[in-house]
Amino acid sequence: MPKGKLDPASIPDDGLTTRQRRMLPITAVHTGPGKGKSTAAFGMAMRAWNQGMKIGVFQFVKSPKWKVGEETVFRTLGELHDTTGQGGPVEWHKMGEGWSWAKKAGSEEDHARDAHEGWLEVKKRLENHTHDFYVLDEFTYPLTWGWIDIDDVCSTLANRTGTQHVVMTGRNAPEQLIDVADLVTEMTKIKHPMDQGRKGQKGIEW
Amino acid sequence: MPKGKLDPASIPDDGLTTRQRRMLPITAVHTGPGKGKSTAAFGMAMRAWNQGMKIGVFQFVKSPKWKVGEETVFRTLGELHDTTGQGGPVEWHKMGEGWSWAKKAGSEEDHARDAHEGWLEVKKRLENHTHDFYVLDEFTYPLTWGWIDIDDVCSTLANRTGTQHVVMTGRNAPEQLIDVADLVTEMTKIKHPMDQGRKGQKGIEW
Repeated sequence: MPKGKLDPASIPDDGLTTRQRRMLPITAVHTGPGKGKSTAAFGMAMRAWNQGMKIGVFQFVKSPKWKVGEETVFRTLGELHDTTGQGGPVEWHKMGEGWSWAKKAGSEEDHARDAHEGWLEVKKRLENHTHDFYVLDEFTYPLTWGWIDIDDVCSTLANRTGTQHVVMTGRNAPEQLIDVADLVTEMTKIKHPMDQGRKGQKGIEW
Repeated sequence: MPKGKLDPASIPDDGLTTRQRRMLPITAVHTGPGKGKSTAAFGMAMRAWNQGMKIGVFQFVKSPKWKVGEETVFRTLGELHDTTGQGGPVEWHKMGEGWSWAKKAGSEEDHARDAHEGWLEVKKRLENHTHDFYVLDEFTYPLTWGWIDIDDVCSTLANRTGTQHVVMTGRNAPEQLIDVADLVTEMTKIKHPMDQGRKGQKGIEW
């Protein structure tokens, strides 16, 4: 990296010290049609885990095979924390198996309700400071589909207390979400092997 | 994820079976001015580790603090493999401390030579099938600066044998590199907290 990459463009006139500013919670969005939105979020979570932060991952879209690799690694890291004290504790919750706190796996599928309840759970956790680093994976889809109230999400994020970092992923992030975020990256596909008729493969896609 | 995301757009007329095509090595480039290029590469490596692949990470630019989180996690995963057999083995090499194979830390700094020797080492490893998954982190910079021969890189990548996946990161990926890659993603900055005068912070930037 070129020198000075960590230097801010200018010192803001916000009345905060550098230290206070450094402790501000990050609200990040990874959006766009390209690869790497979730992968980069999990990479950030890995770094946060290493700093001893309490990690909470919430997958908002059913994905039976997808991300099983990340899940296994994070469960491993969580166990490592529990047994050796290294890193931070990890919780991983996903739709499709029933949100684990709701204990209703096997009930009639209702994705909209699941997503809504998932968000209410995340909201409660933000109020209780349950985690230090939240990944809301593929969160933009239930927002776009109207399953989760965008106004509630934005006001909850804007008004949360403490230094709880939140990273959200998914295509077509709503403008309102981008407004409330302070770190927004768009992943754009330039080339993809599936364009050449190749299927997803082990170790690359999952 | 929407259904069918893993389906290719069309079946190619390349004489390969789906299984053969599935085993093709991936050549990926994460470029663009936004965040997440390296982070997504390490996220992919995490997934590959979980599949038992032999991971080799090569950092091509000095970065004293940067990525220390990822490095610690990957060293932890590598140790976990060595002691329990879970996942794959991990090697992590970086410039600035002297490429560990060259044993010349402390010698007069010569970044160009270091980068060149680093590439020759990676090339040798590709010939020997040393790893299954290579991260060449911030590799585009020494290419752009002419420290590493782009023609040699492209022909080495194009002619490598086996199923060795290679993921390269860095801004301004040369067109020639994009041509030889089959998965290219551009990360674009939409918003960044440093624009608001915030500095990098623990658990987010490192």
